[in-house]
Amino acid sequence: PRKAAAIERTLPCSLEELYKGTTKKMKISRDVIDSSGRPTTVEEILTIEVKPGWKKGTKITFPEKGNEQRNVIPSDLVFIIDEKPHSVFKRDGNDLIVTQKVPLVEALTGYTVQLTTLDGRNLTVSVNSVISPTYEEVVKGEGMPIPKEPSKRGNLRIKFNIKFPSKLTTEQKTGLKRLIPSS
Amino acid sequence: PRKAAAIERTLPCSLEELYKGTTKKMKISRDVIDSSGRPTTVEEILTIEVKPGWKKGTKITFPEKGNEQRNVIPSDLVFIIDEKPHSVFKRDGNDLIVTQKVPLVEALTGYTVQLTTLDGRNLTVSVNSVISPTYEEVVKGEGMPIPKEPSKRGNLRIKFNIKFPSKLTTEQKTGLKRLIPSS
Repeated sequence: PRKAAAIERTLPCSLEELYKGTTKKMKISRDVIDSSGRPTTVEEILTIEVKPGWKKGTKITFPEKGNEQRNVIPSDLVFIIDEKPHSVFKRDGNDLIVTQKVPLVEALTGYTVQLTTLDGRNLTVSVNSVISPTYEEVVKGEGMPIPKEPSKRGNLRIKFNIKFPSKLTTEQKTGLKRLIPSS
Repeated sequence: PRKAAAIERTLPCSLEELYKGTTKKMKISRDVIDSSGRPTTVEEILTIEVKPGWKKGTKITFPEKGNEQRNVIPSDLVFIIDEKPHSVFKRDGNDLIVTQKVPLVEALTGYTVQLTTLDGRNLTVSVNSVISPTYEEVVKGEGMPIPKEPSKRGNLRIKFNIKFPSKLTTEQKTGLKRLIPSS
């Protein structure tokens, strides 16, 4: 007998869930043929173990969990991981990217980044270099877990959006020119 | 009789040529059939008037300037304008874009842009606002000519690449904090 085409369903996960891993229980309702040969509808709970570090597009297949019909092999049911947008972090492969707003003076004189990681820890990163618009601070091992190498993790890359003052007084301008001679 | 497929040739023009317009003389060599019916090769000079503001992709067709063969209408010869990269200006439709390197202190205290336009004029633009990394100074009418409206021109958009000091002394940092209080 022929097999019905696979049914695909999206499984949206938050970045926190993809970071820590999670268990998703999905209730499905499907037609089956009972022992007397009559079609009936049953509900079933499918359990999906989302592993830490899974990426958007990962597929989980439940074989033959589609509707039963006479003379047809039921279709496979396929769940496809999707990643919900996060308010703080963006994902780039195994890396996490965060953009911090920093006032110009702090970009020049020193800045401390305070973040809450995806598993809820407080992370403090002191930046001692001058932060230019293209500066990136890389924190090793604070990215996403790597599913195939559970001991390793990607990096956290901190980018900066430097807030310039909208205007300066004549005194401030004079002071700046005296303080930092043009090179 | 059938007509041979058009022959396409690229005609690279500098941004200056597309700005001011120019006359290109193209030497071509083609097979023709002489009065006695024998094939022979002739050289010909084709003149192309490139109009101010022409864009990459503009096509100029010389009908039936391909090789002559018995029982075939000669192909058209098509020149396609291409724009050579320019060392200072980039083109964006009718606008010109230029990126100026500016030291941080001048970005904050005032900066004067000095440029040579594509037709060789000196252009001086004083920027009085604070120049932040996303700041753009628009000079109306200093872009490319618009072929269909010769009285109009696009804009010149000046972008800035702010050079931050690579390091600052403790005294400079203290001075900066005093001069520009964090808001």
